[in-house]
Formats: sequence, structure tokens, C-alpha cells
Amino acid sequence: MTYCVAMRLRSGLLFASDTRTNAGVDHIASFRKMYQFQIPHQREIVILAAGNLATTQSVLSLLNARLNGEGEHLLNVPSLYDGAVLLGRTLKEVVARDSGGGMQSQGVDFGANFLLGGQIRGEGPRLFHVYPQGNFIEATEDTPYFQIGESKYGKPIIDRVINYETTPLDEAAKCTLVSFDSTIRSNLSVGLPIDMLMLRANQFEQAMKPPHRIGRDDPYFLSLRDGWSKGLRKVFDELPNEPWFDN
Amino acid sequence: MTYCVAMRLRSGLLFASDTRTNAGVDHIASFRKMYQFQIPHQREIVILAAGNLATTQSVLSLLNARLNGEGEHLLNVPSLYDGAVLLGRTLKEVVARDSGGGMQSQGVDFGANFLLGGQIRGEGPRLFHVYPQGNFIEATEDTPYFQIGESKYGKPIIDRVINYETTPLDEAAKCTLVSFDSTIRSNLSVGLPIDMLMLRANQFEQAMKPPHRIGRDDPYFLSLRDGWSKGLRKVFDELPNEPWFDN
Repeated sequence: MTYCVAMRLRSGLLFASDTRTNAGVDHIASFRKMYQFQIPHQREIVILAAGNLATTQSVLSLLNARLNGEGEHLLNVPSLYDGAVLLGRTLKEVVARDSGGGMQSQGVDFGANFLLGGQIRGEGPRLFHVYPQGNFIEATEDTPYFQIGESKYGKPIIDRVINYETTPLDEAAKCTLVSFDSTIRSNLSVGLPIDMLMLRANQFEQAMKPPHRIGRDDPYFLSLRDGWSKGLRKVFDELPNEPWFDN
Repeated sequence: MTYCVAMRLRSGLLFASDTRTNAGVDHIASFRKMYQFQIPHQREIVILAAGNLATTQSVLSLLNARLNGEGEHLLNVPSLYDGAVLLGRTLKEVVARDSGGGMQSQGVDFGANFLLGGQIRGEGPRLFHVYPQGNFIEATEDTPYFQIGESKYGKPIIDRVINYETTPLDEAAKCTLVSFDSTIRSNLSVGLPIDMLMLRANQFEQAMKPPHRIGRDDPYFLSLRDGWSKGLRKVFDELPNEPWFDN
């Protein structure tokens, strides 16, 4: 399993992904699930991947291998929408090759989900969720974030906090880490370290930095975990007890 | 979908279930998912049901219809373990009848999950989770609670709060309602009212009361929702911001 979140807010874009992959509980490994494509001052594109690791790696290998070719690729598509079309097409190509045409073979699910976001000079920041079928949806002001992978445990805090207009990027980052904390506590197949990347609108140099990696001993993450856990417990303790209870 | 929780703590047993059923988003109805079987001062058994409504209703109809028969039924089984065996057998009988032998037919999942708990005089309080296959597991001191239905959104708060030895029933009830609040916020197919029932160990009169029903206008639930939401937000706001962020 995997947990990835991406947000498109007025303040900018945020991407975060865990790094644990597993094929059964006895085959656990660490793989990066965040990929960057960029031309300084022109475009910055980030892709997060969840699903069959063979599929996601092949899709990214093909996207990378074609960057120097003559055809359409992520460094020459005219818009991020065209980038999503390209990613969806590449995904369908890989799944068709590996599964022999169907989405399932020998009980294996070859499917994968991707989040694709960023900015290409000439248009604003955009964010897409590409489905296993290769089609996709775009984030809007009403729904400014997408999750892929093990999304449920970490969804309530995002729903409570994130607002397209008013949430600054640092608060979005804090919310994302709390969301990862809830997910990691509840699902063994999601694990540290976390990769996190933030892009401000119209500032194309940002993507040149590598993503920040948050590991087991990261003091900020530890303080967040601890503060959130103790704070929740305190709020809970201060709530009134069940009045119908006949002690 | 459905959300049901049951807990077996040293302080007693707690059962809670929502009442929304849906077959597609345009076919939503309200059905009770909590059922009681009791003999005053002798036994009290509570069943919570999730899954295919035709299956769960048939299982409960058969369990009820057989209460007056000669065979084994919930009012004469010698232990709660035997009650779980009986429930599992009845479930397999209904699924076999309705599906023509397989668990799936015409793409319909006939499966259902049940939580069965309570106390029969002569043994302590017990709690079982009966799977769609008819087999079952029992709650222990290490894992004192079970959820069925849409369990993920409401699991983190239970994991943080509930402890077999130390959690009193009123705190368990508060925790359960907070867990329902998170679930209801995130999943449209789980809805109010909530039915809740608590049983103290060795006090067999308790189950004679109908479960408490918590509706949309329940002032305690409203105050809990509001207090939890504001409290979470306050804890979140007080946590330190991302230190790597280059403002």
C-alpha cells in the first residue's frame, strides 16, 4: 500500500508521499513514489504514484526515456492537461503490455493511480488525479486536494482544515503530516520516510530543490506526533461524558 | 454501507450502530442494525449487522423464528461461543439459499458481517466478530473492540483512547460517538440516528432497556461534535509550523 496526498491551494501546490511498498507483509521495501520533471523558469511537474510497483515504475521509466525523443513528452506538452493525457496513455500502454489486454491476470491487479501536478508557464498551477483506466479528474477550488492509496485514515483532518482560499502552504504541510501520522498509526503498509515538496505559484525555481525527506528521527515530525496525540487526548478528556449513562 | 462498533472492556460491553442503508446513492433508507435477545437475569445477547440487507434481515428472521422451536436457538445455547457458531451457521444457510451456493451471483455480494456480544449466566461477558464465511474471532484484552462496515475513518480515535483495563463505559461511549462523528463526516452512506447500548458485567437487567437512539437534534451529540471539531482545530493551530518552509 501507499499513501500520497497532493493539494492545489491559492497559496501553491503541495505534494507528499510515503516510501513503503509491500507485496505481502513479508516483502516490504522502500521506494520513492515522487518524481519531478522540470525546465528551470519554464515548467515544474510532480508525479506521485500508487498501485502496482511494476506498473508505476514502467510508466515512469517510459516517461523519462521519451524525454529526449521527438514525440510528445512531459517537457514539451503545451499544458498540464496534455501531460495528464500523456500519463494516462502511458499507463494504458504499460497495463496492456503487462496484463495481455485485461486489467487483471492471474489474480494480479496491474492498476495504478497517479497524481500529476505543477505549473507550465502560460497557465496557472494545476493538479490531476489519473485513474487506473487512464482517464483523470482535475482539482478545483471546491475540492482542492486528492489522495491515492490508503486514504481513509488521513482524510478527516484534511477535510476539517484545508480550504483553497485561506490555507497557507505551511499550514497545509502541517495538516499533511498529521494526516500521515494517522495513516501510519493505523496501517502497517504505510511507512516513513515521507517525501514532501511545495511549489509556490509562478515561482518556477522552487521545483529545482529536491523534496524534503522526513524520516523516523525527524525532530519536527516527532514533535508534531507527540503534540497531536497529547492534544487530541486532552480535547477528548475535556468533552462532556454521556449524560444518559446510569452510573 | 454501515458503521457498527462493539467493545468488551473490564467495565462492560458497549454496542453502537448507525441506521442508514443504501443500494446506490438514490436508494437510501433507515433500518435498525441492532438486535437484542434476552432472558431477564439469565442472558442478554446483542447482535449488530453489516452487509447485504437481504442477508442480514433473513439471518435475524430465522434466528427469531427459531426461538420457539425445539432445536438450538439463542435463548438456549449454553455459551456465547455456541451462539456465535449458531449465527455463523445461520448466515451460511441464508447465503447458500440466496446465492445458489456461491458467495457471489450476478455481481451481487450476498455477504454480511456480524458482531455478537453479551453475557450468559455462568460465564463472563464475551464479544465475537462473525465473518461472511461464518467463522468468527473473539475479542481479547489486547484487542477489546471490533468494527464492521465503514471502519477506517473512525478507527484512529478508538486506537488512541480505548484500553481494556482502564476505560470506563461512559468514556467508551464518548469515544464511540466521536468515532461515529468522524465516519459520518467522511462517508455519506453512514448516517444518523445512532443506536447505542451498554451492558455492565453480571447485571443482567440492563439489556431489558431499549437502546438509546441518538438523532440529528440530540443536544449531547451536537455538543460533542462541536466541542471535538473546535478542540481539534485549536490543537492543530497550536502545533508548530513546518520549520523547513522558506517563507
